[in-house]
Amino acid sequence: MAALIFDLDGTLVDTVYAHVFSWQRALAEAGMAVDGWRIHRRIGMSGGLFTRAVARELGREISPAEAEALQQRHGELFQEFLPERRVLPGAVELLRFLRAQGISHGIATSGRRPEIDASLEALGVGVETLVVERGDVLRAKPAPDLFLNCQRRLGVGVDECFVVGDAVWDLLAARRARMLSIGLLSGGYGQDELTRAGAFRVYNDPAELHASLDELGILP
Amino acid sequence: MAALIFDLDGTLVDTVYAHVFSWQRALAEAGMAVDGWRIHRRIGMSGGLFTRAVARELGREISPAEAEALQQRHGELFQEFLPERRVLPGAVELLRFLRAQGISHGIATSGRRPEIDASLEALGVGVETLVVERGDVLRAKPAPDLFLNCQRRLGVGVDECFVVGDAVWDLLAARRARMLSIGLLSGGYGQDELTRAGAFRVYNDPAELHASLDELGILP
Repeated sequence: MAALIFDLDGTLVDTVYAHVFSWQRALAEAGMAVDGWRIHRRIGMSGGLFTRAVARELGREISPAEAEALQQRHGELFQEFLPERRVLPGAVELLRFLRAQGISHGIATSGRRPEIDASLEALGVGVETLVVERGDVLRAKPAPDLFLNCQRRLGVGVDECFVVGDAVWDLLAARRARMLSIGLLSGGYGQDELTRAGAFRVYNDPAELHASLDELGILP
Repeated sequence: MAALIFDLDGTLVDTVYAHVFSWQRALAEAGMAVDGWRIHRRIGMSGGLFTRAVARELGREISPAEAEALQQRHGELFQEFLPERRVLPGAVELLRFLRAQGISHGIATSGRRPEIDASLEALGVGVETLVVERGDVLRAKPAPDLFLNCQRRLGVGVDECFVVGDAVWDLLAARRARMLSIGLLSGGYGQDELTRAGAFRVYNDPAELHASLDELGILP
């Protein structure tokens, strides 16, 4: 029987645009001008990879201390811009359905506790749900570690797992983990970008995924 | 000789993500929850069309007074979130080059004065440059009126005009105006979305467009 492994930001909670904007402001305050669309296309990587990509783009080094300060400031601005987490349509209902049906599932995110706690709370996810976060693995997406860690702890086979994500980093990490993947438009990527990155289906949001579970062979 | 007609937000100035986020907050304050990605994909329409699309999505009417209040609040939040306008890479240099070479060009935006004044100032655009704004025409994008108005005032033929824009609304309006169009990724759409909407070339940003003018037959 199949299992679902979910990304968090942009997949279950509507946080991508707040992340983009918080990163852009944090970088600008530090004198680093980065285009909004380039930040958008890098959300979902670990913060460490993200700052390295920014450094390459700016053509200068970002020291570990600078990177730490940027992440800190990003977190503050994110909290200021988006004091309440908004779940994406159908996310709460889909997770509730999976629990009720006893279908294996987990959340695997490049985010960290305690920053992700508000999102998990808004989703109605408690201790019964497996959540793998950045601190649990050595390498974040697009490395496969988060998804493989989640799969092992769910106790299912790699070829039984469907990854659900909104970013190409989720889909690339799924390929590297040899899992099938499903793309959601709710993170602001285009349909073709997700398909080309490996998604075998693309839906608008968790609500449309929920209504399409029979297409995926996930329902018992 | 060819002429270039530019969109403004997302094409010459890096304002799309601030617009998305300001709209989302303004709508949320009014009790209307709309996903970030759905707002993103509608930036560049006139505010009137935008609120109508939102109303359809929410399945309720938005009265003219409510729409006016939303636009007002969006403008306030936009100013608060993005006090300084940032030009996109190469935008200032491209416009300066076009002026120096005497290549016909103009800006045609769904935005309005005085809200767009800060962007024009940041771009170094003065009274010598033709700017067509929302108030100059009856219908905004994706209607062709803004581009046709700009073309007539430039005194060039429709088939001499290249529209440069970041949103599918620019590219659809260009098709309806029977003009060729060029897409830029700097507004956060994917390359395929722009190509499918009619762009015959897609570049990252104004800098890459500038470096590619010889591909377009624009240089004398």
